[in-house]
Amino acid sequence: MARISYVNGSFLPHQQAVIPIEDRGFQFADAVYEVVPFFNRTLMDFDPHFTRLGRSLSELSIKNPLTLENGRKIFQKMIELNEISEGIIYLQISRGTAIRNHAFPDPEVVPNVVATVKALDIDQIRERMQNGVGVILVPENRWRQVDIKSTSLLGNVLAKQAANQAGCYEAVFVDPAAMITEGTSSNAWIFTPDGILKTRRANGAILSGITRGSVLHGLEGGPVKFEETAFSRLEAETAEEFFLTSTTSLVMPVVRLDGTNVGNGKVGPITRALQENYSLYVEKQTGFKLF
Amino acid sequence: MARISYVNGSFLPHQQAVIPIEDRGFQFADAVYEVVPFFNRTLMDFDPHFTRLGRSLSELSIKNPLTLENGRKIFQKMIELNEISEGIIYLQISRGTAIRNHAFPDPEVVPNVVATVKALDIDQIRERMQNGVGVILVPENRWRQVDIKSTSLLGNVLAKQAANQAGCYEAVFVDPAAMITEGTSSNAWIFTPDGILKTRRANGAILSGITRGSVLHGLEGGPVKFEETAFSRLEAETAEEFFLTSTTSLVMPVVRLDGTNVGNGKVGPITRALQENYSLYVEKQTGFKLF
Repeated sequence: MARISYVNGSFLPHQQAVIPIEDRGFQFADAVYEVVPFFNRTLMDFDPHFTRLGRSLSELSIKNPLTLENGRKIFQKMIELNEISEGIIYLQISRGTAIRNHAFPDPEVVPNVVATVKALDIDQIRERMQNGVGVILVPENRWRQVDIKSTSLLGNVLAKQAANQAGCYEAVFVDPAAMITEGTSSNAWIFTPDGILKTRRANGAILSGITRGSVLHGLEGGPVKFEETAFSRLEAETAEEFFLTSTTSLVMPVVRLDGTNVGNGKVGPITRALQENYSLYVEKQTGFKLF
Repeated sequence: MARISYVNGSFLPHQQAVIPIEDRGFQFADAVYEVVPFFNRTLMDFDPHFTRLGRSLSELSIKNPLTLENGRKIFQKMIELNEISEGIIYLQISRGTAIRNHAFPDPEVVPNVVATVKALDIDQIRERMQNGVGVILVPENRWRQVDIKSTSLLGNVLAKQAANQAGCYEAVFVDPAAMITEGTSSNAWIFTPDGILKTRRANGAILSGITRGSVLHGLEGGPVKFEETAFSRLEAETAEEFFLTSTTSLVMPVVRLDGTNVGNGKVGPITRALQENYSLYVEKQTGFKLF
């Protein structure tokens, strides 16, 4: 089956999906993106992803070339054309194509919109969610506006590569004040020995993750005490439980941190409960049973 | 005359110069670049630019797909084909094309190499060098490895845009310790009231500019006292002279800083002397007389 991608209004065989070399995403990382999952050929959380896309574009003064409705249609057509049941759609919108100058083109140019689809390896995700993964901590290295989901990701790339070279699943950034920010493509959570679930407040130092938001929403009114607050490297190292949330990691237990066990080195009960809740949330939206 | 660009071994009409949408430069800013000037159809400082390119690639563990000799041949052919006398060649090398994952593709992929040519507006450059320009100071906003000439430039883009909106030529970054780092695409220099020329040492917080290096080299053994050392925002605000160096700014006097005169608001004698030296340096390499 041919892989079909999307470029500026056209659905094309992936090999023909190209953009001009003076695209500003290519030359300046002057572009934003979203990764939207689908299960059972049904989009998950499309609306909050689209809302966040709009915010990212607005922060960069790029006019959103998509409406919620035509965005959703493009995504649904991508699922159909690629004949994939469980996967992710990657959407990138750059400021557009212009002769190279740092400042925004004047007059404005038309944004370039591209999208690709990739199948998710559900068995591998299940296995990792079951057994947990290892992470490393690395110094925060990124530009300051990480709340904008831009393609300025070279710091994330280098950190993720370091994690993989250490045999780990993810790298988690530690800021100069020794506080955890987030993973290279995930938000970080801990459950402390005194029974509080913590994840950093999304006030500029992290991306406001969609899965993070869903998990937080699910906690409201429940029995688990939680705080949106920064936590330190030391708190992470001495946590009972540690997990990551993201579109492709869902609720991913971290059982080894820099080579040392988190808690007793097994996936803890809070993480398990949140996995189950999230699994129900996926099933309710898409009919897909993760566990 | 058609604009000709270069993509992976081919010289093409610019409209046909495209790269795949899964190029890692496009998706992750996982790419480096160089901007090499030419005058009188003759390349300036090609060797140090190529050396710096090699270092940037090496820092990102990308194998340089070009040798010094074939790099130079590509550049010379670009000048010929575009029939431009004075301009710049933009060269970008990304890690290559791969299905999207943050970590480096394994096995390695072949880098994508693209180049474009743009004419320099020499009259405008002369006018600006003659009269000086205005700059604004902005908080340092970039990722930490700015000594790598990568396309992770969104912070630079936003700062340059802010400068343009303020009617200024350039924005200069100030780090959290209130020390000047550099401009969005230039190095910054001051001449202090006690007669010392200062530019920040290229030890990680700035890019090691090629024009900066040439100017420093020209100072050796001369009468002007100079130090490669960080200087503060306050020192910049109270400097006798302030100027920028870069491939396209050459030696560019700054006469207004955040709307206030630098020194007496006129281009100072040290800046003038360095402009003349640099002009001779250009003439010696290329036969082109700037002044």
